[in-house]
Amino acid sequence: MSGAADRSAPPTLNIGPVAVFGLGLIGGSLARDLTAGGVRVLGYDRDPDAAAAALREGVTARSLAPTLEGVEEAEIVVLAVPVGAAPELLARLSPRLGSARLVTDVGSTKGGIVAAAARMGLADRFVGGHPLAGDARSGWDASREGLFRGARVFLTPSHDTPGDALALAGGLWRAVGASPEVLSAEEHDRRLAWTSHLPQLLSTSLALALAGAGIAKGDLGPGGRGVARLAGSSPEMWSGICLENAEALGAALASVRGRIEGVEEALREGDEAALRRFFAEGRSWDAGHG
Amino acid sequence: MSGAADRSAPPTLNIGPVAVFGLGLIGGSLARDLTAGGVRVLGYDRDPDAAAAALREGVTARSLAPTLEGVEEAEIVVLAVPVGAAPELLARLSPRLGSARLVTDVGSTKGGIVAAAARMGLADRFVGGHPLAGDARSGWDASREGLFRGARVFLTPSHDTPGDALALAGGLWRAVGASPEVLSAEEHDRRLAWTSHLPQLLSTSLALALAGAGIAKGDLGPGGRGVARLAGSSPEMWSGICLENAEALGAALASVRGRIEGVEEALREGDEAALRRFFAEGRSWDAGHG
Repeated sequence: MSGAADRSAPPTLNIGPVAVFGLGLIGGSLARDLTAGGVRVLGYDRDPDAAAAALREGVTARSLAPTLEGVEEAEIVVLAVPVGAAPELLARLSPRLGSARLVTDVGSTKGGIVAAAARMGLADRFVGGHPLAGDARSGWDASREGLFRGARVFLTPSHDTPGDALALAGGLWRAVGASPEVLSAEEHDRRLAWTSHLPQLLSTSLALALAGAGIAKGDLGPGGRGVARLAGSSPEMWSGICLENAEALGAALASVRGRIEGVEEALREGDEAALRRFFAEGRSWDAGHG
Repeated sequence: MSGAADRSAPPTLNIGPVAVFGLGLIGGSLARDLTAGGVRVLGYDRDPDAAAAALREGVTARSLAPTLEGVEEAEIVVLAVPVGAAPELLARLSPRLGSARLVTDVGSTKGGIVAAAARMGLADRFVGGHPLAGDARSGWDASREGLFRGARVFLTPSHDTPGDALALAGGLWRAVGASPEVLSAEEHDRRLAWTSHLPQLLSTSLALALAGAGIAKGDLGPGGRGVARLAGSSPEMWSGICLENAEALGAALASVRGRIEGVEEALREGDEAALRRFFAEGRSWDAGHG
């Protein structure tokens, strides 16, 4: 084999055909990395332009039709659609999953989809997944190679998930540079309500308050821009996440609201000591002592 | 003149001696840039270690004693202390400001200090200043050259400020690479309540809620870390800012709290349409249509 041939041959991941449903930021980026690693990727997106672009750019080897015909070829099926749309897609896929060894998803809430998979008799091969690689961008145009390098990925098997399906899910994500961490769907959703969904809601709440006051993004300094940075996130994706995780998220929002009310009271009363305590607690958390 | 002498001579800013009170992130960085530009800088910090470090590193040409003796030499006096401490310092300085052509400050609220300067009969040479260059870091160790390059600086003259004092303040900031923008102290404080103080309070409120839920900074993904990034800010500095700007800030906090309450209601009622509108409004603001 010549040196030139060596360089042109992509590194090969030892993974069978992967069907990716939803070619947005996460699904599109996963498809790019898998294809770059020599994996055969079947793609589907409800937006024909996104699906056509992926095929044209060689990111998918084949576009699946809306009938889902052809998915039978896949060894791994990845649902990368908004969490509200995933259960219905899973129901439509389930008669066609004969040979798939792993069905997984990438949604930001895990309780609903893990329960739906169990109801459909797919607990023997379904493993919930959630890569922490999202940002305010979304869609095929935001997808890129290397998105998952160094990212954490939560895997949420159910009680009935066999070890080889979980191992395959871990291998899939490690193949694109991510670090899998296993926890239950319930613990995942409770934790993410605080670490991800709450910050998103605060960022958007700030944006709406600023819009109401006639303040544009360009009026902010670097600090304010950082806090408002998530406001550009996808409405469809995030309304679904909030509904799925409404209970845990409600508790998290009530907690933050309580802190804000405390500051409002301190301001009304000119209570400098209370304000100092407030900021000191924040700084202590920031320094890792919180 | 030899080429070697050319290279060793610093570029010279055409500015007389500048006294900088408070050698933290802002004051220390300003002193660094001025000294690098060949300006004679007199420095004071209540922390003797910071003052000694500035002198030792050549960032200040002279350390002023707590008596403030020697400030008479300064053509420009800059107060870079927490906003709550600035009026008292100004009162102590005022008998010694015989030859100063400009007295200015760098605080994040402007109404209080501009009014205090007027009460002390300093309206003829006081111009409020506020460089938008802060971040969560503070103190001498955070100071650095070039901090103000490309930054916006708000200048808030009073009705009685003569044009040459305002021109000198503009020249000072342009000399370190910043872009001055003139507005009234009242308009500044109203605007900053939304663009800076509100994001700071939300970032710290998030940190406190996370601390209460046992969530550490390292548990956050990149999005959440961005929203919580300001939590490390100085408690002394920020409690003073909040008290100074309590009224405008109270209105801004109430507005954000109203948005949060709206989301809480939508979550309780499972109102997907309301959640979609919420995120769509945020995205619209982010895209510049808000």
